[in-house]
Amino acid sequence: MENQSVRTDVVIIGAGPVGLFAVFELGLLDMKAHLVDILDKPGGQCAELYPEKPIYDIPAWPVITGQDLTDRLMEQIAPFKPTFHLGQMAEALERTDDGFWRLTTDIGTVIEAKVVVIAAGGGSFVPKKPSIPGLEAFEGTSVFYAVREMEKFRGKKIVIAGGGDSALDWTINLQPLAKSMHLVHRRDDFRAAPDSVNKMRALVADNKMALDIAAITGLEGENGILRAVHMNSAERGDYVVEADTLLAFYGLTMKLGPIADFGLHLHENLVPVDTEKFETSTPGIFAIGDINYYPGKLKLILSGFHEGALMAQAAFRYVFPDKKLRFQYTTSSSALQDKLGVRESKDAA
Amino acid sequence: MENQSVRTDVVIIGAGPVGLFAVFELGLLDMKAHLVDILDKPGGQCAELYPEKPIYDIPAWPVITGQDLTDRLMEQIAPFKPTFHLGQMAEALERTDDGFWRLTTDIGTVIEAKVVVIAAGGGSFVPKKPSIPGLEAFEGTSVFYAVREMEKFRGKKIVIAGGGDSALDWTINLQPLAKSMHLVHRRDDFRAAPDSVNKMRALVADNKMALDIAAITGLEGENGILRAVHMNSAERGDYVVEADTLLAFYGLTMKLGPIADFGLHLHENLVPVDTEKFETSTPGIFAIGDINYYPGKLKLILSGFHEGALMAQAAFRYVFPDKKLRFQYTTSSSALQDKLGVRESKDAA
Repeated sequence: MENQSVRTDVVIIGAGPVGLFAVFELGLLDMKAHLVDILDKPGGQCAELYPEKPIYDIPAWPVITGQDLTDRLMEQIAPFKPTFHLGQMAEALERTDDGFWRLTTDIGTVIEAKVVVIAAGGGSFVPKKPSIPGLEAFEGTSVFYAVREMEKFRGKKIVIAGGGDSALDWTINLQPLAKSMHLVHRRDDFRAAPDSVNKMRALVADNKMALDIAAITGLEGENGILRAVHMNSAERGDYVVEADTLLAFYGLTMKLGPIADFGLHLHENLVPVDTEKFETSTPGIFAIGDINYYPGKLKLILSGFHEGALMAQAAFRYVFPDKKLRFQYTTSSSALQDKLGVRESKDAA
Repeated sequence: MENQSVRTDVVIIGAGPVGLFAVFELGLLDMKAHLVDILDKPGGQCAELYPEKPIYDIPAWPVITGQDLTDRLMEQIAPFKPTFHLGQMAEALERTDDGFWRLTTDIGTVIEAKVVVIAAGGGSFVPKKPSIPGLEAFEGTSVFYAVREMEKFRGKKIVIAGGGDSALDWTINLQPLAKSMHLVHRRDDFRAAPDSVNKMRALVADNKMALDIAAITGLEGENGILRAVHMNSAERGDYVVEADTLLAFYGLTMKLGPIADFGLHLHENLVPVDTEKFETSTPGIFAIGDINYYPGKLKLILSGFHEGALMAQAAFRYVFPDKKLRFQYTTSSSALQDKLGVRESKDAA
């Protein structure tokens, strides 16, 4: 469990392309940024959902893949040395007595910053949950949607639900550690690598695990401790599988997530902002990219880039209330070029 | 003299990076564009003033020169086959009886379009004029600020004014054609290639031309026909040089130019727009890039790109009032990919 507390100028929620480019615009104005993202790598949807898919509407890039776009942005912001807090979700936001925003993530990272920039795109990628009555009562104790540490599942009576790669991979990887292993899926048809499906079927043939082509109808247990999973299949009707652990892998979906509880005005799950500073209804909290809303809004990466540039000008006033902001161009300003580390050294004349 | 009249969807005034990318955003929505620019090539300031200078703040381009940026944009908009009208200035704009905008350039090109997009950056590059009483009366007949056709100056008694490369180059190039040639400059000190200065001095030494270190004090002639140029120097005092042609090369400056007469509201030589459609005070006329103004405005190329994207959505309603606009992504829409010519052909299954 990560547990650190840092103070910085700006914390950016979301390390997709828009969050990344915001680091650049903030950096040009001497502001340091930390980024938080639920994914385990920078790039957001671009890198997670379509790393190899070409994008055609990034200006001056007739074609670029999501991964290449991410890589070029990482290169562009490298001079500003941003700090990444990956694989964790921005969970709670509160005000400190001395005028900082304290952001806490779901694994306990605490970041205190003068300015918060929400660049969370469509929101957080969160696991889709099966619709099983009483599921919530077991979450975090017996029901999980991800495996962070395999050892935790040693000696457990495990039911894994799902038919994709995650379900198959964890079935195969956890089976040797588990006391018992059931894979439950509605159809005998898997959206997973054929090799994984073959391995799973071999384990079933060896009686090392069971495959249930069935629906989960209910959970049995008390105080969050699971005792059995109720299932129903065409062949067997209702039946019960003894289990103390249920792992559900039904894919990821986008949710606004805890940002909805930050106390901001919302408009259909989007965060309304002005078009001068891209600031939310709460001073010092900005929203850029797909998550914000204003008249004319288009969910284009390009628009998020522009929004980040204007946001940075306004953020400057919170971070450096006594400094005067002078607008400069990278093409002509040697001060900016020094920050980027690209200025040719001069003779000490 | 070009003299053509065309009808199209959109006419863009200014072929700098912002005007170029607007072609892309319009093209995605099936709108055809014509571009007018006073320069003789696309790219605007980027290509004219700093083709070799690196720019660092184009997203996903850690560094790119003005010329490379222009080249990549030209490549990106190639599928939409824009028409360029270069080396001419958008001069007059009027409304046709059937609801088009008729734009006329200073060399007589006429373009009629449903929508006008002003992407003129800092305005037009126009020649700086010497402050000589009565100068205007001779402009276009005996006084010129550019050489479009050398033959026009054969046999003329020419005075060239200026001390930079243009003045020196034209002195050297026109001297063999001219009946007489004077170069007049205030100081015996030239901001031109040393080789050109040497060549000019050699022509003076050979008595093939005269160098006047002097100020022009007045022009003599009637009905726009020049007869003599009055000069004053420290050595000679007031004197007169016989001449029928004055070519003044005092450099270029940025002026809003004829756009100021288009009947739009202006704000300190900028064109105020809304931030939803980037439309001016006149419906159907939009302004994007450095020439527009709104709260928060930053004169960034990036911002002009964003403005062009939102403008295109609004322009669509003028060009196709009866069509419904569906927002699509280049990454996922095969219809957009067809327009870009990038979709992999499918089996006719």
